[in-house]
Amino acid sequence: MKVGVLGSGEVGQSIARGFAGRGHEVKIGSRTPGKPELTKWKKEAGAKASVGTFAEAAAFGELLVIATRGGVAAEAIDAAGIKNFDGKTLIDITNPLDFSKGMPPGLFVGTTDSLGEQIQRKIPKAKVVKAFNTVSAAQMVNPKVKGGPPKLLIAGSDAKAKKQVEGVAKEFGWAGVYDAGGIEAARWLEAHVPLWVALMGELKTFNHIFQPLTP
Amino acid sequence: MKVGVLGSGEVGQSIARGFAGRGHEVKIGSRTPGKPELTKWKKEAGAKASVGTFAEAAAFGELLVIATRGGVAAEAIDAAGIKNFDGKTLIDITNPLDFSKGMPPGLFVGTTDSLGEQIQRKIPKAKVVKAFNTVSAAQMVNPKVKGGPPKLLIAGSDAKAKKQVEGVAKEFGWAGVYDAGGIEAARWLEAHVPLWVALMGELKTFNHIFQPLTP
Repeated sequence: MKVGVLGSGEVGQSIARGFAGRGHEVKIGSRTPGKPELTKWKKEAGAKASVGTFAEAAAFGELLVIATRGGVAAEAIDAAGIKNFDGKTLIDITNPLDFSKGMPPGLFVGTTDSLGEQIQRKIPKAKVVKAFNTVSAAQMVNPKVKGGPPKLLIAGSDAKAKKQVEGVAKEFGWAGVYDAGGIEAARWLEAHVPLWVALMGELKTFNHIFQPLTP
Repeated sequence: MKVGVLGSGEVGQSIARGFAGRGHEVKIGSRTPGKPELTKWKKEAGAKASVGTFAEAAAFGELLVIATRGGVAAEAIDAAGIKNFDGKTLIDITNPLDFSKGMPPGLFVGTTDSLGEQIQRKIPKAKVVKAFNTVSAAQMVNPKVKGGPPKLLIAGSDAKAKKQVEGVAKEFGWAGVYDAGGIEAARWLEAHVPLWVALMGELKTFNHIFQPLTP
């Protein structure tokens, strides 16, 4: 499958490496596709990996991923071209984090909206699935926690798109998914992130993953 | 220790039963202390258990618990008498849930405030510790999940009060606590609840407990 990844930071590089490592063709889209770290990434990720502009990556991918900082997600989508999202599944890894008041971060969307919903409203012909936003870049592919492979928290309003993301998660080594509901449940996946951040100090890791344990 | 529990619903009865069962004297405070279910509760909870008004329970307790519905917490504190909280630790189990838009519920406090903080501001001489709000009434005492006893998520701005609540948690069979930070972190413990609710259907239980699993 051809995958376009918008965002070339640690998260974008990590998830794109995951796709390239499993035989998918992947193109990272960046505002600055010529930057040295992406040349390095491309070299390491192999023959299936390429780098381009946001628009090139969005046009290339049958499956798309957005992994920019939350504050620039809308801008990245505009640069990528709204039409390039039509009919496609978009895995939304963004978080609406507001670090202006210190740690843990707040959310710039409140609790009656989410960045996932804002993105879905902006590209109504795409099928947005919030996923991978609750874990560190290092745990997105081949996640490791005590007790065996965890499941990935997801939310989205299109059942087929969620099935597709479940397939990606399994390909990446997750045991499956926990489906929190429609895209409006992105509110609670995003609000989970400050709690996750709040425990980094006590747990001495960024690589913890919350799981709902049953009796 | 003498414990006063404000709120006589399932949560208040459950946590009060926990205290009574471990040799503490406990008084449940209610708007309607004469209601039959409290007479029944008192009989089952044993000689250390009693029932009274909000003010009687608040005056009685050296340690206090608030376990009312979120929407009536402020009213219950007023009825209990602000002075009765002075210098005491208050375990805050309330949740600011808004069910007016269906399931999962929203929060009526937004993400720049929390019910925990509102309660702390209302009774500034008390030491409010948000705790037990992220689990079902049935799991507050002797929590059972696969993999052994879980730890309890807490938040509060007084270190001694948090130590005291950690002691209560251990007495109740928890392995310890995860300390999310000052009382402002109550925002993320409260925002965790809609996520927890969202997974009830898929998990077919109310008794799941989220834990941060490490590599």
